[in-house]
Amino acid sequence: MSERHQQVEDAIVARRDRVNDALPEDLPVQKPDHLYEASRYLLDAGGKRLRPTVLLLVAESLLDVDPLTADYRDFPTLEGGQADMMSAALAIEVIQTFTLIHDDIMDDDALRRGVPAVHKEYDLSTAILAGDTLYSKAFEFLLETGAAHERTVDANKRLATTCTRICEGQSLDIEFEQRDVVTPEEYLEMVELKTAVLYGAAASIPATLLGADEQTVDALYNYGLDVGRAFQIQDDLLDLTTPSEKLGKQRGSDLVENKQTLVTLHARQQGVDVGDLVDTDSVEAVSEAEIDDAVERLREVGSIEYARQTGQDLIASGKQNLEVLPDNEARYLLEGIANYLVERDY
Amino acid sequence: MSERHQQVEDAIVARRDRVNDALPEDLPVQKPDHLYEASRYLLDAGGKRLRPTVLLLVAESLLDVDPLTADYRDFPTLEGGQADMMSAALAIEVIQTFTLIHDDIMDDDALRRGVPAVHKEYDLSTAILAGDTLYSKAFEFLLETGAAHERTVDANKRLATTCTRICEGQSLDIEFEQRDVVTPEEYLEMVELKTAVLYGAAASIPATLLGADEQTVDALYNYGLDVGRAFQIQDDLLDLTTPSEKLGKQRGSDLVENKQTLVTLHARQQGVDVGDLVDTDSVEAVSEAEIDDAVERLREVGSIEYARQTGQDLIASGKQNLEVLPDNEARYLLEGIANYLVERDY
Repeated sequence: MSERHQQVEDAIVARRDRVNDALPEDLPVQKPDHLYEASRYLLDAGGKRLRPTVLLLVAESLLDVDPLTADYRDFPTLEGGQADMMSAALAIEVIQTFTLIHDDIMDDDALRRGVPAVHKEYDLSTAILAGDTLYSKAFEFLLETGAAHERTVDANKRLATTCTRICEGQSLDIEFEQRDVVTPEEYLEMVELKTAVLYGAAASIPATLLGADEQTVDALYNYGLDVGRAFQIQDDLLDLTTPSEKLGKQRGSDLVENKQTLVTLHARQQGVDVGDLVDTDSVEAVSEAEIDDAVERLREVGSIEYARQTGQDLIASGKQNLEVLPDNEARYLLEGIANYLVERDY
Repeated sequence: MSERHQQVEDAIVARRDRVNDALPEDLPVQKPDHLYEASRYLLDAGGKRLRPTVLLLVAESLLDVDPLTADYRDFPTLEGGQADMMSAALAIEVIQTFTLIHDDIMDDDALRRGVPAVHKEYDLSTAILAGDTLYSKAFEFLLETGAAHERTVDANKRLATTCTRICEGQSLDIEFEQRDVVTPEEYLEMVELKTAVLYGAAASIPATLLGADEQTVDALYNYGLDVGRAFQIQDDLLDLTTPSEKLGKQRGSDLVENKQTLVTLHARQQGVDVGDLVDTDSVEAVSEAEIDDAVERLREVGSIEYARQTGQDLIASGKQNLEVLPDNEARYLLEGIANYLVERDY
């Protein structure tokens, strides 16, 4: 692992720990306990807190403070005064968690972060309500940062439209599963809505709250969109190229389950009968050799390279968008996070 | 029907029509169509629009404009400038609709407003997503009224905490169904959270947006809480006292299904074995005579009168809270709505 990669991992871990300390302060288990325990359950089960980390690093870079030295609860703004950046960071994490809880119901996924999904650990009603509670809590958090009122309104508009876009993306994702033909462009649009807009919100909301100009806010939003899309594409690639032991699940499971990814959608455009790439129709029964052959075929028609290049282009664009920030350590770490998202191999 | 009752009904219908005209403007069916059609489905199925009516009437009274003469989209504020009161009214209606969609999933209710519930007409995933979409749309609407930024932040804080409270109330409602002993006080607290806070939001948010002082905002919030609680208690009473033909369902069905209401909780405190009041355990098989006997027993121990008096006291308190408003026709109609909620017999 390179020195820079290690620096980025350390930066993420340090901010993750701060977020984890703040969570029980702002989201205590209170009456009715059952509801708040269920709302906290997935949050407490872990997670890298990548989106809050991006939010906090943007704030640190914009104000040019030495990383981790400022009090996130009383963070200086560009216009004088203070704003609670931790409250904003929690808003983003809590929205991410709400979408995971509801998505797991829709996909009937049994496991998340190594523990039972909320609707399995509790029940359907509790999971719906826990998600709904986190939803309003996120707005409470983002309305209570103490930033200037105009900034607060703008930041909350971003959060509200982001949530609407996420619902649209999830709706498209479900629709695409039932469709025969989806183009790579449609897939990338779905990924933008379902995944990338929340990175866009995480990167732009601190700039809005702290009083940055419109050009800076827009560039940071685009940084978030770029890295968010690259993140999803890398997930698709890892499923094909990372050994099962390292992946924590069967390599190639997306192929076995006929899941549409940027790789398979490109291959289909090249005339590959993607549904026939793997004959075995259960993840348990498929052999490594069969996956190897399928991946080799995808490589031959250029689909692996296409997805990798698309991801690399997005990261390059993302880093270019960071040039609106002062040249400091926090910006260097944000560039590192962009690389980290496509260099990670698990 | 009294003249005043007719005036109140006319006032509600007139504002309902305005709300119905505005809905497709602010919530058009757009891509992905499936999601937005499902989000509009229950809204388009009908509804009295009582909460938006309360919101619009408070605005009219505060600014002392002749009812229905002002442009709700460009409504004058107390501080100069304009604010879109229709957008605020839609925010409240859309939150109400989101909670109905998700509650119907939790209770597995098949019908709502005479049509299949969203999760029956579509499916579980679509219903969860439609509710989630309306949730963020409500914040979009309330962030975009054009009111002063500080007012906008305060109004959205009210909306966010209201949504959190509604989730808490629904969680308590589910919990109470599994508990043997619930006190009338606990029941009233649950009703406050589940039902009344949204009336509180509907009555206070226009005052916040338009620049009223804190005392006025608080009094209007309490008006909403009062009438919201009274509304639920009246629902409980109607189930016992209104003929089945008029009710549109079997009279006494709450008793047959052992649903806890303020009436039955009071009766239990008087030593009545409420579970045994009606022997028949299906709504289809119960006889009118059996219901008559049960209601007579509830009347004897004072439970009907207790609930009626509690409702009347709440309405009196609600009307007193309206005294912060100028003495004008809109206030007269808001008083009338309070009466209307407990005088209605269907």
